[in-house]
Amino acid sequence: MTYQPPVQDVMFCIEHLSHWDEVSQIAPYSDFDLSDIGAALEGLARFCQEQIAPLSRTGDELGAQFEDGRVIMRDAVQHAYAQFVEMGWQSLAHPAEYGGMGLPRVVGAAGVEMLNAADMSFGLCPLLTDGAIEALLLTGSDAQRATYLEPLISGRWSGTMNLTEPQAGSDLGRVATKAVARGDGTYAVSGTKIFITYGAHDLTENIVHLVLARTPDAPAGPKGLSLFIVPQKLVNADGSVGAGNAVNCVSIEHKLGVRASPTAVLEYKDATGFLIGEENRGLEYMFIMMNAARFSVGVQGVATADRAYQRALAYARDRVQSRPVNGSAKEAVAIIDHPDVRRMLLRMRSLTEGGRAMAAATAGLLDIAHHQDAPEMAALAEFMVPLVKGFCSERAVEVASLGVQIHGGMGFIEETGAAQHYRDARILPIYEGTTAIQANDLLGRKVMRDGGETARLFTARIAATEAELAQGDATAQAIGAALTQARGTFETALAWLLENSRSNIDGAFAGAVPFLTLTGTLAAGWKLAKAALAAQTCRDAGQDPDFMAQKIATALFFAQHILPECHAETARILHGAPSVLDAAFPV
Amino acid sequence: MTYQPPVQDVMFCIEHLSHWDEVSQIAPYSDFDLSDIGAALEGLARFCQEQIAPLSRTGDELGAQFEDGRVIMRDAVQHAYAQFVEMGWQSLAHPAEYGGMGLPRVVGAAGVEMLNAADMSFGLCPLLTDGAIEALLLTGSDAQRATYLEPLISGRWSGTMNLTEPQAGSDLGRVATKAVARGDGTYAVSGTKIFITYGAHDLTENIVHLVLARTPDAPAGPKGLSLFIVPQKLVNADGSVGAGNAVNCVSIEHKLGVRASPTAVLEYKDATGFLIGEENRGLEYMFIMMNAARFSVGVQGVATADRAYQRALAYARDRVQSRPVNGSAKEAVAIIDHPDVRRMLLRMRSLTEGGRAMAAATAGLLDIAHHQDAPEMAALAEFMVPLVKGFCSERAVEVASLGVQIHGGMGFIEETGAAQHYRDARILPIYEGTTAIQANDLLGRKVMRDGGETARLFTARIAATEAELAQGDATAQAIGAALTQARGTFETALAWLLENSRSNIDGAFAGAVPFLTLTGTLAAGWKLAKAALAAQTCRDAGQDPDFMAQKIATALFFAQHILPECHAETARILHGAPSVLDAAFPV
Repeated sequence: MTYQPPVQDVMFCIEHLSHWDEVSQIAPYSDFDLSDIGAALEGLARFCQEQIAPLSRTGDELGAQFEDGRVIMRDAVQHAYAQFVEMGWQSLAHPAEYGGMGLPRVVGAAGVEMLNAADMSFGLCPLLTDGAIEALLLTGSDAQRATYLEPLISGRWSGTMNLTEPQAGSDLGRVATKAVARGDGTYAVSGTKIFITYGAHDLTENIVHLVLARTPDAPAGPKGLSLFIVPQKLVNADGSVGAGNAVNCVSIEHKLGVRASPTAVLEYKDATGFLIGEENRGLEYMFIMMNAARFSVGVQGVATADRAYQRALAYARDRVQSRPVNGSAKEAVAIIDHPDVRRMLLRMRSLTEGGRAMAAATAGLLDIAHHQDAPEMAALAEFMVPLVKGFCSERAVEVASLGVQIHGGMGFIEETGAAQHYRDARILPIYEGTTAIQANDLLGRKVMRDGGETARLFTARIAATEAELAQGDATAQAIGAALTQARGTFETALAWLLENSRSNIDGAFAGAVPFLTLTGTLAAGWKLAKAALAAQTCRDAGQDPDFMAQKIATALFFAQHILPECHAETARILHGAPSVLDAAFPV
Repeated sequence: MTYQPPVQDVMFCIEHLSHWDEVSQIAPYSDFDLSDIGAALEGLARFCQEQIAPLSRTGDELGAQFEDGRVIMRDAVQHAYAQFVEMGWQSLAHPAEYGGMGLPRVVGAAGVEMLNAADMSFGLCPLLTDGAIEALLLTGSDAQRATYLEPLISGRWSGTMNLTEPQAGSDLGRVATKAVARGDGTYAVSGTKIFITYGAHDLTENIVHLVLARTPDAPAGPKGLSLFIVPQKLVNADGSVGAGNAVNCVSIEHKLGVRASPTAVLEYKDATGFLIGEENRGLEYMFIMMNAARFSVGVQGVATADRAYQRALAYARDRVQSRPVNGSAKEAVAIIDHPDVRRMLLRMRSLTEGGRAMAAATAGLLDIAHHQDAPEMAALAEFMVPLVKGFCSERAVEVASLGVQIHGGMGFIEETGAAQHYRDARILPIYEGTTAIQANDLLGRKVMRDGGETARLFTARIAATEAELAQGDATAQAIGAALTQARGTFETALAWLLENSRSNIDGAFAGAVPFLTLTGTLAAGWKLAKAALAAQTCRDAGQDPDFMAQKIATALFFAQHILPECHAETARILHGAPSVLDAAFPV
């Protein structure tokens, strides 16, 4: 089974859902037109299909290799990574000023999807490097940017995020790693960091660790954290790689999924670190990086879901089993002809395409907010990021599970490959902030803090789409009716949460994850509805009628099968808090 | 983390939900009272906790071992299995006539749960033996029963079900294994069977394979299948184990979960087989056995869910992370105090206890239907079996996934143990008939065939429980209100499906799995509501107030968080068929 990068749908999302009219007006992006972007993505698609996708199964079987304190990447990965650097794919959505291709995030997101669909264990290395680049771009000093950005953007060096410690996971305030100023402008960093993705490997000349640590006089808790650059090898004045730094990989983890990606325990023993920005503002800087990483993890969800869908679709076409339930044939048929297999495939497809649509829209908002003074767009972007992360990651687990189910008994056999997606996907709702962390971010920072203003902006835009759908044909009207109902239930939940945001804070937060699910489901259904409207226009203009019919069918399925789930989420929010808060647990 | 067998809840379910008043009147069971049963289950619980549970992690790490054509079980499993035989646990729910303890299925189900919660890879061997015993009891000749039942019921021999072939999974009509009469009363059986659980191992003196095969002149399709006993070693006239039979284990599978249980490819080359019953009635006999096995797989779902819940609960109590969201403390608290962790734990608990309640009720119906002329009870039992299998297996996957989530990053590390449940659970919605197969059985055979009569019996009983709840306190009334709403939506769906059962068969079957989910959710919610009523009575009578309060809290959570999901299932059934049937897929 070969991975087929979904370039057509990605381009459709960029053109019709990513606010492309506005993004394409932004100075650094106005040089590119859609055909340039299509050509770049076709090139990346070919690379992903030919060079990366074949690494996935074998890497999973072998797992990451740790020997004598070193992580040894396989020759096949070394070769593919060298190609990746040579072709410059790390630079896709980074500024031309530092050697990047300078494309917007709407294109970068498509790149993240394809790389991670081809092989999530491979895709994690560039994903973390992207995060380090983002952090240095926004918070590094001129000298730091001059030293680190070009080699990171070229892919010759990679980056990591060092947050977690055994006692500090979701609760970063408990970080204990120490950083002591040496008086020469550097700091001595000491402590143990765990769960460091690509914390050790031999693919690049250097690894740039971004490390959260605490200076001796810093306040306790999250407000006493500072962020440091700790390069695996020190960098000489001419930018060349110098002596090793005191950072050691103690071990790597034996994981459920993404087994070919090394997840390191790193020990810092008076390692030389360089402060980013000011002391005690580390968490704030880390959040900038984390926001980008959270978005990308949502896109990994879309990626894993798509790969699982493609594999299940191929199997369902190929596997012949049982006569039609309606008795229309005497012979067994391909299982794709059985109604429930179709239902599962459409569920997989609509969740995948819904996630992709949502991510494309959010990427466009992020591009606009980054370059323009557009407070509404910025607020909407911030509102959408936890949805992309929370919704797409949770749904990726569901989609991968359906992919196993479609394979029947063969799905449980590792060699088939479906089980790998089920294992790989399971990290997505956990890392870069669990689903509950996303939900608290959404409810606390993005909804309650502005008294629901951004949330109402969101619903007003949905209502505008409903008005368009109401003018359309029967399919558009059916989609619109489901959307109106889902939005209504969202508004009921929103009003309840705002009313209870002070008087009943535990009760409100007992509904945080249901609210995230509700909002994410509504957002994906909305974006697919917009996709259906665009597809109808394209179809009527004579563009690729088969593809456009599929887009419309996906949106209709989502509206009729998935949007009704909003009802239960709202019921949980409105009526379910006491049963969460009052129950006792057996001792 | 030690497994704590839930003897108190199991006994509560037997006493209050299993139709115990009727079951305990049936002749073979009237010798036992609840204290006998409690004592037996306490003994089995101790055995599961002390001898079986420790096998689970190490077995998963090592996997089943296949060397030189033989499956070698570890010494620890050999030892535990020998104890299992010595203590006679295989015989728990089998007739005294053949050496069994003679307890009813309501007790047998509890045994299946505890063994499989302790270690599903171990539990599968007795589970398949149970199936073989059931088939021989109901369809074997006197001579066959005399030969095979005592050694199987003692556990000295084990049993297997040989259905699947590479081209024949869900579609058993495609079975190609041949059986040619030799003229001496035996048959020469030849063919390849795959996915044979415990098809090869060295725990027992003999393995009794029950094999679906086709005689030379048999009609094509499912009506030409016959069922054969093919012992791994032939049995001498005195009942002792004799020469080896021509059945070879070619290989075992490399699986996602239940890795310590050997899943064999068996090759039959003119192996000696003995016909069960009449030729061409094999599928009918196999279904008798399968019904029992399906019920047991549902119970495995309860088992896996409970183990995942217990592990997550222990972790949530232990893990300290983050301050309370309501600002009530300055220090980080155990994560069990965070609302969303509580929500996840309660979801795990209510799905687990809901499944257990449903299984206990179904076991009681099966006991009654087996021994008495009670057509309504028999019809209800048949209606419930696909619900127990379909609902409990699908929910086990969800519960195990939540268990990983509660562990955060640690959940993704294999050594933690949470990931194993997520992997193990994934086979449950597949083997012994996928969820779609269960749904087609429910909708086609159990609902449409009698024009909804049994389904209306089911709702009438639920309505009776609602009437009781309406007389109760505010909690009972809240549960009752949710139940009434869910039942209403079920009745709407049922009416639509019956209306469409002839005119729109594809459309009706596009809603088969949603209907299974709807019905299973309603059934579990109903049984938990009955549990809450019983718990209120017990509490008012002064019995264990903490336990009774937990039972009531579980039922309330299920009513307010899970019953509302019925709404979406009904919406899918009523409005979702065209979008399933009409969509095209990319080529």
